[in-house]
Amino acid sequence: MRVLILGGDGYLGWPTAIHFSAAGDEVWVADNFAKRQWELEEGIQPLRPVPTLHRRVARWRELTNNPIHLRVGDLTNHRFVYKLLEEARPDAIVHYAEQPSAPYSMQSRTTAVNTQVNNVAGTMNLLFGIQAICPDTHLVKLGTMGEYGTPNIDIEEGYLTVEHNGRTDTVLYPKLPGSFYHLSKVHDSNNIYFACRIWGLRATDLNQGVVYGIDTDQTVLDETLATSFHYDHVFGTVLNRFLVQASLDLPLTVYGKGGQTRGFLNIRDTLQCVELAARNPADRGEFRVFNQFTEQFSVRRLAEMVVAAGGRHGLDVKVDQIENPRVEREEHYYNARHSKLADLGLVPHLLTDAVLDDMLDTIVRHNAAVDTSTLMPSIRWAGGQVAAKA
Amino acid sequence: MRVLILGGDGYLGWPTAIHFSAAGDEVWVADNFAKRQWELEEGIQPLRPVPTLHRRVARWRELTNNPIHLRVGDLTNHRFVYKLLEEARPDAIVHYAEQPSAPYSMQSRTTAVNTQVNNVAGTMNLLFGIQAICPDTHLVKLGTMGEYGTPNIDIEEGYLTVEHNGRTDTVLYPKLPGSFYHLSKVHDSNNIYFACRIWGLRATDLNQGVVYGIDTDQTVLDETLATSFHYDHVFGTVLNRFLVQASLDLPLTVYGKGGQTRGFLNIRDTLQCVELAARNPADRGEFRVFNQFTEQFSVRRLAEMVVAAGGRHGLDVKVDQIENPRVEREEHYYNARHSKLADLGLVPHLLTDAVLDDMLDTIVRHNAAVDTSTLMPSIRWAGGQVAAKA
Repeated sequence: MRVLILGGDGYLGWPTAIHFSAAGDEVWVADNFAKRQWELEEGIQPLRPVPTLHRRVARWRELTNNPIHLRVGDLTNHRFVYKLLEEARPDAIVHYAEQPSAPYSMQSRTTAVNTQVNNVAGTMNLLFGIQAICPDTHLVKLGTMGEYGTPNIDIEEGYLTVEHNGRTDTVLYPKLPGSFYHLSKVHDSNNIYFACRIWGLRATDLNQGVVYGIDTDQTVLDETLATSFHYDHVFGTVLNRFLVQASLDLPLTVYGKGGQTRGFLNIRDTLQCVELAARNPADRGEFRVFNQFTEQFSVRRLAEMVVAAGGRHGLDVKVDQIENPRVEREEHYYNARHSKLADLGLVPHLLTDAVLDDMLDTIVRHNAAVDTSTLMPSIRWAGGQVAAKA
Repeated sequence: MRVLILGGDGYLGWPTAIHFSAAGDEVWVADNFAKRQWELEEGIQPLRPVPTLHRRVARWRELTNNPIHLRVGDLTNHRFVYKLLEEARPDAIVHYAEQPSAPYSMQSRTTAVNTQVNNVAGTMNLLFGIQAICPDTHLVKLGTMGEYGTPNIDIEEGYLTVEHNGRTDTVLYPKLPGSFYHLSKVHDSNNIYFACRIWGLRATDLNQGVVYGIDTDQTVLDETLATSFHYDHVFGTVLNRFLVQASLDLPLTVYGKGGQTRGFLNIRDTLQCVELAARNPADRGEFRVFNQFTEQFSVRRLAEMVVAAGGRHGLDVKVDQIENPRVEREEHYYNARHSKLADLGLVPHLLTDAVLDDMLDTIVRHNAAVDTSTLMPSIRWAGGQVAAKA
């Protein structure tokens, strides 16, 4: 299969690229390195140094003899997109190439508008490019479970059948996104669904939960192959941040009451899910939606699990409930269906003690490099003006 | 009341401005004249010449002694938006300032992306400006009934209460927009709702039906006060186009079967509805949605009514069913609630024979200026590439 990974320099993009390459697929990656620029703006670095994408691609070839085709460019430049599609002629496109942080999007008017314009216009260029150049290509788009918000009813996979005044219809599941970033993903989903309806494109929208994990079967082969692991308040996800805090004898920072419940998955399962979606494409004209996570946890429960993992490492981990910088429900109903990827064969890596211990071991080895000033949130969702960056 | 009309040069914006001014309100208008530029791109002119906004504002002052404050600028320039809000300090903002045409948005990648970026980024700048400068201001935003599509269940006003697996929630009504333009309005609605939730802004989203009509109580006072009346395939609405075709002994062009049913309203009722919304503001934090139309018609039924009006004018009007350039259902269920504006006091101007006859009279007087080459659709929704402009 010819697979094009957009956002191939990222936390998930790079491991996805070498995962497909290891499986024998012909892999193309593209990136504009915007995420690295945003990190610089925030004064943020990943836990381990991440070599350039060029160096990682070269190292992968040295180790495996597998070429990965690398192109540098920006999806908001449609000429780049069209040329890339003409060259790569992909069977599947895995699209990670978006501004991925809710706090970043909430920092200022500039970051909010740039997030939406970058994500929406880039994805629109991609849709027009697919329609013009390779209309049979299967678009696998990364969305987020955060698009749904926390409704008081069960969350279905993409669609909801509604009976109303004696009549019935199946509609896109109503969304209640919680940041300008999450909104950009909702806009994308609506645009992609439209392109499937009017042009007969085929697409799978992966509403992904919160990803945790440091390594995959391929990244562990060589330290040059490491992926970007973030523990900070802007790009870090909650479990990754908690484990870094635990490793440094810092209290875990739970936002508010901690009853916020979300779907979670191991980075290894991201790769499995994306591969399952790509190898089982949507039909022409079909806009397919999968909820991509394996387990639900509350933030409070995750903190308890990290406290226990710390105990097994001789660390006396404390938990701080800090003021919630976000506007969100802190206690709520949450029950999200996630059976479609399991039906395709997903075998989950669950969040066991062994997984937590292994992550904590790796983090302890690298935590001398942690910048503790980037752990505490400084971007508030509400309260007069959006707070300026400290 | 201090009212700021964004898009004050447009078909609806200008009549809205002089409507509020006639009522004694302090009126500010802003426009960047982008719509006039888009008309030039398409080779399109309105039926009657439309003087510059500056001339119309000056003439209005000569006739009524009422000043209208005019500012020229673009909502995608946030510095313009912030300065405008600081000067005008509006109690209500009526926001028409968007690319308003579905066919225009479907013409090419460029027009699709520009439509979404222009509409979404402009509205985001406005939301941030309101939050920073005048958070108590009531935003009255023009949306469209086309955001809902044609679901098989009754269309409610903005929200739908869903019972699912024994639990209940009230959610934003699911949308199924039919063009990149309609999608931009859905994106806007989601962004505005979010701003109400997290910042406590107050907003009313007016999901407006298809507007028809040429004149209002104020535009008839002087020919300099005319508003932009479009009959063409890009910016013209269906009834306006049918009447122009009838006046010229040209067949009415029904797209496909003509069972497409939509909500319609007279331009005079647009002004009434906007005024009712502005004088009865939403609460802080409330995102209020009104369906703004007075009657439902199928396109086929409208054609029959125009044939009859033509008969009363001695015109033998024919109807052509032409290939539908859009991707849409041509026969479908349609029942949309529209009671909230009636509850506030809306007294509809219904589409009577007298209204049709009056419009046709005016059009017959001006139809020597019609460019008949702009009546037939040339922009197709689907079919390989979006068709190039003829």
